[in-house]
Amino acid sequence: MNSIFHRVSIRKYESRPIEKEKTELLLRAAMAAPSACNQQPWEFYVVTSAELREKLSKTTPYTAFAAEAPLVLVPAYRERGVVPQYFHIDMAAAVENILLEADALGLGACWMGIAPEPDRMADVKAILNMSDDLTPFCLISVGYPAEERPQQNRFELNRVHYLE
Amino acid sequence: MNSIFHRVSIRKYESRPIEKEKTELLLRAAMAAPSACNQQPWEFYVVTSAELREKLSKTTPYTAFAAEAPLVLVPAYRERGVVPQYFHIDMAAAVENILLEADALGLGACWMGIAPEPDRMADVKAILNMSDDLTPFCLISVGYPAEERPQQNRFELNRVHYLE
Repeated sequence: MNSIFHRVSIRKYESRPIEKEKTELLLRAAMAAPSACNQQPWEFYVVTSAELREKLSKTTPYTAFAAEAPLVLVPAYRERGVVPQYFHIDMAAAVENILLEADALGLGACWMGIAPEPDRMADVKAILNMSDDLTPFCLISVGYPAEERPQQNRFELNRVHYLE
Repeated sequence: MNSIFHRVSIRKYESRPIEKEKTELLLRAAMAAPSACNQQPWEFYVVTSAELREKLSKTTPYTAFAAEAPLVLVPAYRERGVVPQYFHIDMAAAVENILLEADALGLGACWMGIAPEPDRMADVKAILNMSDDLTPFCLISVGYPAEERPQQNRFELNRVHYLE
């Protein structure tokens, strides 16, 4: 599938905003992901506020560029599933869908880890004024790419074990 | 992207084997996933042995159908990354790529959780005779679909919070 083999982390963006239709497609892609027992623990913060993007960009040493992204998505999970031990795994599948859909729409994105780091989680939760039962999972910066590069080939045959 | 909005869990398969070229594309898709600090913790067991598929199918109450899949992939991770707290998250992104690539190739697949359940992890590790520093993450059954259904629309606008 083309986007799987084309997607790279993009950290430089044009300043133009993301169309609402494309933002919704990113969210639809996220919610199309599989989850353990179909528990769908996810909710999504769609942050276009410049003030909030600036604050989010300071929550880790590696996220300064997020302040310049026209859009920052913050997937979070609510404690509502039957198998909470799979919350992070479910969320990661949804995030990968967002990254791939962004590529398919001509957008660039970058996944920035928040969970399971307690300090980062507390900071993001406070900035977005999340309710007690919501936990932030990561940040995803999104914008039209202002950089371009080919995907690195990471395939390594010595990581594969055939049991025939 | 078409496969994101088409993929469903497929648990019934034709008996014909998966072509080696398609199996390799599934593995290439997995290794094209992003990972924290690009640590790429993954390795992959490609299980076509009927005896081993039968044993794997008994490691959880929900995986009996895997015995009838011509191929079972078992992603695992090695303790080699700089941020081990992201191993499960990295693995989940790679698994989602496999599921989407399977759909794009006309195959059906189903993700079965193993980690973080200690009993299941120990059983799968023993069946595949993994070395001490490898940990099984999940099972993925793969085959040509012998069932078909549309993807459920899981989009819910009340899970989205706009901060403008």
